[in-house]
Amino acid sequence: MGTRGLRPLGAAVVGAALLLGAGTAWAATGSLTANGEARRLTGDQTAAVKDQLRGGAAKNVILLIGDGMGDSEITVARNYALGAAGRFAGLDALPLTGQYTTYALDRADGLPDYVTDSAASGSGWATGTKTYNGAISVDIAGTPQRTLLEIARANGLRTGNVSTAELQDATPAVQVAHVTDRGCYAPSSTTAKCPANALQNGGLGSITEQLIGNRADVTLGGGATSFNESAVAGPWAGKTLLQQAKDRGYQVVTDAAGLSAVTQANQSTPVLGLFAPGNMATRWVGPLATRTGGTEPAVTCTPNPAYVATSPTLAAMTTKAIDLLTGDRKGFFLQVEGASIDKQDHAANPCGQIGETVDLDEAVQAALAFAKKDGNTLVIVTADHAHSSQIVYPNTTTPGLTRTLLTADGKPMTVAYGTSEAGGSQDHTGSQVRIAAYGPRAANVVGLTDQTDVFFTIRDALRLDPAAPSPAAPVIQNVNVTEGAILRGRQTVKVTLDTEPRYTYIELNQGGTWITDNTKAPGSSQAGKRPTLVLDTRDYPNGSYTLKIDAVGIDGQTTQKLVAITIANR
Amino acid sequence: MGTRGLRPLGAAVVGAALLLGAGTAWAATGSLTANGEARRLTGDQTAAVKDQLRGGAAKNVILLIGDGMGDSEITVARNYALGAAGRFAGLDALPLTGQYTTYALDRADGLPDYVTDSAASGSGWATGTKTYNGAISVDIAGTPQRTLLEIARANGLRTGNVSTAELQDATPAVQVAHVTDRGCYAPSSTTAKCPANALQNGGLGSITEQLIGNRADVTLGGGATSFNESAVAGPWAGKTLLQQAKDRGYQVVTDAAGLSAVTQANQSTPVLGLFAPGNMATRWVGPLATRTGGTEPAVTCTPNPAYVATSPTLAAMTTKAIDLLTGDRKGFFLQVEGASIDKQDHAANPCGQIGETVDLDEAVQAALAFAKKDGNTLVIVTADHAHSSQIVYPNTTTPGLTRTLLTADGKPMTVAYGTSEAGGSQDHTGSQVRIAAYGPRAANVVGLTDQTDVFFTIRDALRLDPAAPSPAAPVIQNVNVTEGAILRGRQTVKVTLDTEPRYTYIELNQGGTWITDNTKAPGSSQAGKRPTLVLDTRDYPNGSYTLKIDAVGIDGQTTQKLVAITIANR
Repeated sequence: MGTRGLRPLGAAVVGAALLLGAGTAWAATGSLTANGEARRLTGDQTAAVKDQLRGGAAKNVILLIGDGMGDSEITVARNYALGAAGRFAGLDALPLTGQYTTYALDRADGLPDYVTDSAASGSGWATGTKTYNGAISVDIAGTPQRTLLEIARANGLRTGNVSTAELQDATPAVQVAHVTDRGCYAPSSTTAKCPANALQNGGLGSITEQLIGNRADVTLGGGATSFNESAVAGPWAGKTLLQQAKDRGYQVVTDAAGLSAVTQANQSTPVLGLFAPGNMATRWVGPLATRTGGTEPAVTCTPNPAYVATSPTLAAMTTKAIDLLTGDRKGFFLQVEGASIDKQDHAANPCGQIGETVDLDEAVQAALAFAKKDGNTLVIVTADHAHSSQIVYPNTTTPGLTRTLLTADGKPMTVAYGTSEAGGSQDHTGSQVRIAAYGPRAANVVGLTDQTDVFFTIRDALRLDPAAPSPAAPVIQNVNVTEGAILRGRQTVKVTLDTEPRYTYIELNQGGTWITDNTKAPGSSQAGKRPTLVLDTRDYPNGSYTLKIDAVGIDGQTTQKLVAITIANR
Repeated sequence: MGTRGLRPLGAAVVGAALLLGAGTAWAATGSLTANGEARRLTGDQTAAVKDQLRGGAAKNVILLIGDGMGDSEITVARNYALGAAGRFAGLDALPLTGQYTTYALDRADGLPDYVTDSAASGSGWATGTKTYNGAISVDIAGTPQRTLLEIARANGLRTGNVSTAELQDATPAVQVAHVTDRGCYAPSSTTAKCPANALQNGGLGSITEQLIGNRADVTLGGGATSFNESAVAGPWAGKTLLQQAKDRGYQVVTDAAGLSAVTQANQSTPVLGLFAPGNMATRWVGPLATRTGGTEPAVTCTPNPAYVATSPTLAAMTTKAIDLLTGDRKGFFLQVEGASIDKQDHAANPCGQIGETVDLDEAVQAALAFAKKDGNTLVIVTADHAHSSQIVYPNTTTPGLTRTLLTADGKPMTVAYGTSEAGGSQDHTGSQVRIAAYGPRAANVVGLTDQTDVFFTIRDALRLDPAAPSPAAPVIQNVNVTEGAILRGRQTVKVTLDTEPRYTYIELNQGGTWITDNTKAPGSSQAGKRPTLVLDTRDYPNGSYTLKIDAVGIDGQTTQKLVAITIANR
């Protein structure tokens, strides 16, 4: 594993600006042995904490989730990357901190289930409703619960959803989908696992289809594979979900260069970044924990060859999402997930989980830098649940799996995984976890809270009306030509919509055959809430015709109306 | 294990006053399934948190330590005793919260050792100096570091030290002793393990001897056995340490009734409560975790027959200590430890660790009740290190040991222990842990701090001068009779001391034989800083005599001076 070539990280981060405290004695002396040298504080922090307390409303909220990032995982990463006395410039710089409970519910009786999965936990903060393991923003009865992202969008805010996981994975999914089983990524799995949710059965569709329909302005992550399936029902039946996304106006990008080139993201042209078939690669790799790994020579992590510059980092995705979401009067809600702390903890892979934690820290730094400049942004950083990894006495083994790493301090740290029998995936644990915040209402993370409190804190900080209607296909409120009308001479077909469409297509059709439409007929208009088709009916033979009106919303959802008419010139 | 007869605890605690928040939706409805029912907060907490921020000085500080009480141990106990949605009326009611790092140092190179023991960790907060595992308030070179309790006493504050462990155990020891090995409880172990610390070698003595000498006003816990050893050097050589304590003015009590009967505790008559030969009993017992315990029927905890009403509870000791320490203008410093969260976690005994956590919660409630009434007391609650126990998926096993409990929710919770190979003691873990506080400078626990910050926070909140001299044996500044003096007629021997003694004994002695002294001679005085012996030298034959002066300090430490004189009347 070679030498500790990754060491410089420590120094760089320690030098960054801190929100609280004036640095450490350790940073000044490099020694920890004398009285006071390991201090992180100087003096009375009362005024500094008071300065960080702002109530009232926030314009923007950025919620960053370290999946499986319990206090143990944070400490493992800090020890390795910065040394025990180090301080993450993002994760450790949030000025207000607390603990929250993460428990799920037993679907059968509604009573606590002490170890949550990411689906139940995420549903908790996304909707304010506790639910069962595996549920994606439905309650224990399977009833959809409205999410922060849906409510923010309904209130006219811009929205973003960023993850290093597949975008169908639980944490990104809880903001944009409602299915009874987290495995319902695409039409085939939904038909198999959540048939009631399938489009062909009158449901809301697979996670991917609901993600497209819920139309965050910015959606960035992995999970391209599911987009290759085709819809089996609905307006886009037979088309791949990727094609559907494009048809509905999404700008689809697949690499860092493509993402960089994007200059705007809004409801007309949302951005969908699909940077990997499945989960995105982690920053570092190293040997897995094994039965004897703890007593083997200490190893260091090495760069992951799969973590390439052509894919954006989590920090780069976060920065780009913020850039694209700012500038609107109404503000934004952005969720960011570092997914592989959990995934690599499951795999007993210390270097994998550490690298992802370091990546998340950099994303938090980006969020805090924006929030400090903006002055009106609430940043919340937490985990969905605790996980398996524990720091045990150095160079020891346990009944489970261990691995000893050589840290930034140049000392051995042994990480143990022991929550699953041999050969199994290491599992989540039920401990309360850290939650930390900066900005308006950051005080709401202090003390003991529950994951469902996050929903209400964000909803209320953004002053969202939870009942605001979600954007839908335009409603055709009026057509000035009534069913069965007899037309003659010059006519202007005038359509009235309730909302600004992407465009409205008005076609004169006879027996299913196109005659003319408002893209061809001079003086007609496709745009705005009052589109028109200007006709001189004398150009066409007398007879029965149909006016076919397609009002296409900004998200590609379409309302169609057919009006039977007769042309009867003298 | 029977039914959940212990259940009423939950209801009682939930009803208690909370410092933050206005109760929970759950407490009102009893249901967790609907939107918002699992919330712990209502509304914007900014004003509530701001109300809790007070800078400046504190008159009193109460530091409560849950030994080994990581976030996982807190959650295990809350789930079991109150249910997952419950809220400890003490532990969970501290208004300001954060996380702190606990790492120790490698004695050889001064670099971090990622898993601390209670000795190094306690030394960290007691002295502000990081040290090696096993060290009791000495630095990595073995040099004594002054403790909060010593400094508080030197500044004239009253002091207390309470634990459910042996009083020689690391956490109580770090406030009153300086030895290079935590095992140096009594003279014999000190001679064996820390010879340089032994009295006969010019050291400060065993932990027990230093405890007696450092003379907290109130010292309550277990550990009577070590007091049965005899000193092998020093002024009390040959006497048991218990007798020494009595000789030096301690009121020794051994049961709850004895403690109740104590009406005062100060430097003249400090209280030493020795309530068990070793560690005090835990509140609850139940089956240990085993290789298959997780899949066996869920059990409940039962009262421990050894936990008897004749021994005080941790809450009772805390309340009594507070009662005895209040009333002084200068305030007090009190440390309280719930020791067996750690000890029972080592033993893979979930009921043991849970009962001790519940006991600590009640002690915290007592401390908070006093602090709220007093208005000028800082209460800090934390742990010295994280520990082994993890909550895993219910009714599963792990490669280590598991046990499934039936909680206050009526649901199974499986607790796993997997940090040691079979047959070994379960071990500490290196995660950062929760720290929480109430009162002046409570803000200093918010965010990420280190255990050594606690020392400075408490020292500075109490405005302690770290260089104030500790009380010592009185210094005999002057005797009005000089060495070799020739006396005749009526004489008054006048002694001048630097400090108020317990008493000063002034004897006229000839050839080692008592002649008279200031308890017999009319007009003499034993009291105050100017004691006297009034003599009519004509009552004694001419010849050589010695004046033997013993100035006995309030802690029994004595300064002796011998003055050779000649009586030569005409």
